[in-house]
Amino acid sequence: MQDHEIAREAESMSAESRRLYCIRHSLAHVLAQAVVELRPGTKLGFGPPVEHGFYYDFDLPEPIAVEDLPKLEKRMRQILRSREGFVREELPAVDAIAKIAAMGQPFKDEAAADLASKGVGTISFYMSGPFIDMCEGPHVRSTDEIPSDAFKLDSIAGAYWRGDEKNKMLTRIYGLAFLTKEKLADYIERRKLAMERDHRKLGRELDLFHIDDEVGKGLPLWLPNGTVLRDEIEKLAKEVEFRYGYSRIATPHLAKQELFYRSGHLPYYKESMFPPMRVEEEGQEVEVFYLKPMNCPHHHMAYRSRPRSYRDLPLRFAEYGSVYRFEKSGELAGLLRVRGMTMHDAHIYCTEDQVKAEVTSLMKMYKELYDVFELGGYTIRLSTHDPAHREKYHDNEDIWTESERILRESLRELAIPFVEGFDEAAFYGPKIDFQMANLLGREETMGTIQLDYMSRERFELRYIDEHGQEIGPAVIHRAPLSTHERMISYLIERYGGAFPTWLAPVQAVFVTINDDLLDAAYQMRDRLRADFIRAKVDDAPHSFNKKIRNATVTKVPIVLVIGPREAETGEVTVRRYRRKEQRTVPFDVFREEVLAEIRARTHVKPDED
Amino acid sequence: MQDHEIAREAESMSAESRRLYCIRHSLAHVLAQAVVELRPGTKLGFGPPVEHGFYYDFDLPEPIAVEDLPKLEKRMRQILRSREGFVREELPAVDAIAKIAAMGQPFKDEAAADLASKGVGTISFYMSGPFIDMCEGPHVRSTDEIPSDAFKLDSIAGAYWRGDEKNKMLTRIYGLAFLTKEKLADYIERRKLAMERDHRKLGRELDLFHIDDEVGKGLPLWLPNGTVLRDEIEKLAKEVEFRYGYSRIATPHLAKQELFYRSGHLPYYKESMFPPMRVEEEGQEVEVFYLKPMNCPHHHMAYRSRPRSYRDLPLRFAEYGSVYRFEKSGELAGLLRVRGMTMHDAHIYCTEDQVKAEVTSLMKMYKELYDVFELGGYTIRLSTHDPAHREKYHDNEDIWTESERILRESLRELAIPFVEGFDEAAFYGPKIDFQMANLLGREETMGTIQLDYMSRERFELRYIDEHGQEIGPAVIHRAPLSTHERMISYLIERYGGAFPTWLAPVQAVFVTINDDLLDAAYQMRDRLRADFIRAKVDDAPHSFNKKIRNATVTKVPIVLVIGPREAETGEVTVRRYRRKEQRTVPFDVFREEVLAEIRARTHVKPDED
Repeated sequence: MQDHEIAREAESMSAESRRLYCIRHSLAHVLAQAVVELRPGTKLGFGPPVEHGFYYDFDLPEPIAVEDLPKLEKRMRQILRSREGFVREELPAVDAIAKIAAMGQPFKDEAAADLASKGVGTISFYMSGPFIDMCEGPHVRSTDEIPSDAFKLDSIAGAYWRGDEKNKMLTRIYGLAFLTKEKLADYIERRKLAMERDHRKLGRELDLFHIDDEVGKGLPLWLPNGTVLRDEIEKLAKEVEFRYGYSRIATPHLAKQELFYRSGHLPYYKESMFPPMRVEEEGQEVEVFYLKPMNCPHHHMAYRSRPRSYRDLPLRFAEYGSVYRFEKSGELAGLLRVRGMTMHDAHIYCTEDQVKAEVTSLMKMYKELYDVFELGGYTIRLSTHDPAHREKYHDNEDIWTESERILRESLRELAIPFVEGFDEAAFYGPKIDFQMANLLGREETMGTIQLDYMSRERFELRYIDEHGQEIGPAVIHRAPLSTHERMISYLIERYGGAFPTWLAPVQAVFVTINDDLLDAAYQMRDRLRADFIRAKVDDAPHSFNKKIRNATVTKVPIVLVIGPREAETGEVTVRRYRRKEQRTVPFDVFREEVLAEIRARTHVKPDED
Repeated sequence: MQDHEIAREAESMSAESRRLYCIRHSLAHVLAQAVVELRPGTKLGFGPPVEHGFYYDFDLPEPIAVEDLPKLEKRMRQILRSREGFVREELPAVDAIAKIAAMGQPFKDEAAADLASKGVGTISFYMSGPFIDMCEGPHVRSTDEIPSDAFKLDSIAGAYWRGDEKNKMLTRIYGLAFLTKEKLADYIERRKLAMERDHRKLGRELDLFHIDDEVGKGLPLWLPNGTVLRDEIEKLAKEVEFRYGYSRIATPHLAKQELFYRSGHLPYYKESMFPPMRVEEEGQEVEVFYLKPMNCPHHHMAYRSRPRSYRDLPLRFAEYGSVYRFEKSGELAGLLRVRGMTMHDAHIYCTEDQVKAEVTSLMKMYKELYDVFELGGYTIRLSTHDPAHREKYHDNEDIWTESERILRESLRELAIPFVEGFDEAAFYGPKIDFQMANLLGREETMGTIQLDYMSRERFELRYIDEHGQEIGPAVIHRAPLSTHERMISYLIERYGGAFPTWLAPVQAVFVTINDDLLDAAYQMRDRLRADFIRAKVDDAPHSFNKKIRNATVTKVPIVLVIGPREAETGEVTVRRYRRKEQRTVPFDVFREEVLAEIRARTHVKPDED
């Protein structure tokens, strides 16, 4: 980001955010001052504030190593103590360019010339002590506004000047900076946890999924352990949807281009779709197919495949449907950004009178689902339209007013706190989004409820009302559990791979004191498996202690220890993942307990949680 | 089929089949004789025997209607009683052409000229009484060899001369013909049943699936009722596979072309695949994707995504995987021939020593699955290779000998009767197929077990054996329940749409004597639904009798009648689909009974079955 963009960004911030922003930006200058002192002759690139801190890019006459960072940090603290002011100077572009030329900073020369060529009339500088930088600000007024115990130099990386690989590679030094020492420590702790719990790392260690270049980037192969997660989540969804009166449907993964022209995906969404499959006969194109990027068009076709009566409504079609979107290969990342995803989709077709009851019921269902995963800390955002932006939204103001009113009322009646996102609706209607933050605080939309008053026109969706009239139903798109890919990457981090028993790929492992007891363990395992409990016996040629360690490493929730006494009395000694207590109980007591735990989807937490 | 092809086909038949073949062929001539008498001046097309009977194509000076068929049939019986012989005459092509020219039969002229142009030296004729036809035979010796009560004129259709729509439209008269009157009656009865039970007809009537041209031919949308069938079958498969030690995996529906070159699908199978998705950047092709026509390549990639040890084997990867094949649009038919199908797939990776135990276990599993659907009448075919056909099969004779021996031994040890299909193996190994016939006797392969000794080379599949050596595992492909599409079309016919309770889309419907009792019915329905029983209340504004009729029409297995007495005592009167008996039992007794029935997947048959 260039300085003048930073300045513009800072203008739109809250006071506290702006303060942190200025501190981070100023620390970048202080860092540069320290580096220039340590390595005279250093050429300066850019040095912006970023999320969690700041960086500065340098062309160094002699390298700086990670070992040098404490020294630099120490020098920066000295500079902060000097109570230097940050002084702004503005010069006409011509004068500024002359001033920079005299500084012997070729990257700054280039940046200044660039600004001038864009017609920028004045260029500003900031001076703090002996250090001067071409910079639009903003900055703190003085270095004593910067807490000296709330920042830390973090890492060193290579970075091309202006991000272009044709340019010279510079040295980028990253720093973390917060308002207080506690916030810094907290961030470092959360980052450590997030790295330990990184879904790609745990996905590999726990054999959850695999992405293979020969199959294709962004197209995960779900291995047995990961498929257990998918299956258990789908089972939960099916059970909840059965209770809420949903029907399930199953639709193909592609369709003729005609369908996507009808839906409007073509041509408007084309660049996010996989390329077409063109069927040719004798050199003539006879049919063109596309992979579906969303399930809606297929669901709407299922709706209109039969005449519908008001007596059939609401009709709720659910499908855990796999969709394919052509994300750029550079943007693909683990399960978070993929090209193939399986979505917890449903479409509700109802009369306008039924919309509110459906939304209310959905809000309850979402809470019920999130409670299973103990996902409490989400925020709910109601996105509405801006009547001034006619090109962004369908043009029936009455419907907008009414549908936004319905959503707002539903939320209020349920006493659910929410924020409103003005001018953030979908083209076809307002929506409610469930925003969840990961360990590092990054927000993702997990669930969504969207009203749609357009599809009934595009797809000619109809029902016959009590007077024999043909009416277009309201459509609600909903996806509480997002996609398997996003949900599971979130759950991996949330549980650190130590899943509750109902979700765990292996639910219980038998470890025997010696190999003579294996038969007793096999028999008990078979009795558990008869109830579809995912139990196994560790019969590898390892010591007892190693087997116990392996169970912990693979995060199996329950270890059943079988010694001679247990084998004789028909008991098991039950140990829980990272819990101190252990109990010896009759096998059947354990069996009933674990079945109840799985059925209720209880989470028995580790001691330290 | 032209006459000289018929003759060749007849040569390869059993005595009985040949006799039936001659009868049908001769009846075609007798029909032609009767038609020419009824409509003098009729021009003759071809008249071959076909499955179940025969036809003859005519260019009629005056139309023949279905009402005329009994008259024609009567005349045919008179001709049969005349004990005319079928006399063959052979002439050199030139003389034959002259003879035909004199007959005033332009289609025969054309056919004869055609034969001559192909260099046929002699052309034969068959005479029976006054009727003469250019024909290569074979025929019965005399009309009294034809049972006069075992044939029936069936229908009239239009047919282009030689099947080419550029030619004249002729009138085709179809006849049925068998060896006995009983076989004719049996066939007519089975055909009637097959028509009533046609999966496309029932698919529509019972709202099971819908094929929409805008989505694409051969790409069924599974509606809620059909999706219940899929889900219940998958649930069954999952349960059985859990007991047999399978792991489930989930793989994407496409892959880069590199994967299919490795598997050999490209270029050899290319014409059965959907066209490629070509990703271009700045006019350059950077990636090419294909929809997967089979699940094997993805499963093999999942196998090789991790190092494997002999201790991990057998590794059994199961997936109900959707695959896409580009069948010609003219060949698509309901669910039987589709472009998108979901296959009950699994691949077993094991040591060579484990192959036999795996096959034995598979045979048991297949029987267990087929028993659930009461599919008893299948034949098992062991397909082996022909060492003389080197181009058709991989070239390791030792492996062929050994693997065929293993399959044969497994079948014999289990005392399972089987036929052997010499020279019918797959390229990569021998296989066992489970052949099932539909109501009309047409055989389809339902399940298959295939040994594969090629994939370990193509995919570099390996495991580390007990000595630390890298070894390629044997691979077994297996698909007991075929695809959802084939299996469900088979089950629709097999049950005539009246599914056993565990499969039925609606398992129980409440019908009340009057509307005051609806609340009692709703309460009981909710208690059933709490146990995931698919129960509903018929609360439409219809009479009691109409509701009972509707339940029969929609083939709901259980009707629960609630009258004032039942509502008071908390009982239900249980009626079964097409069963006379009905019982009044306490609601909880019924609930326990139906839960047990669903759990055991019992089929309570209609009285008349």
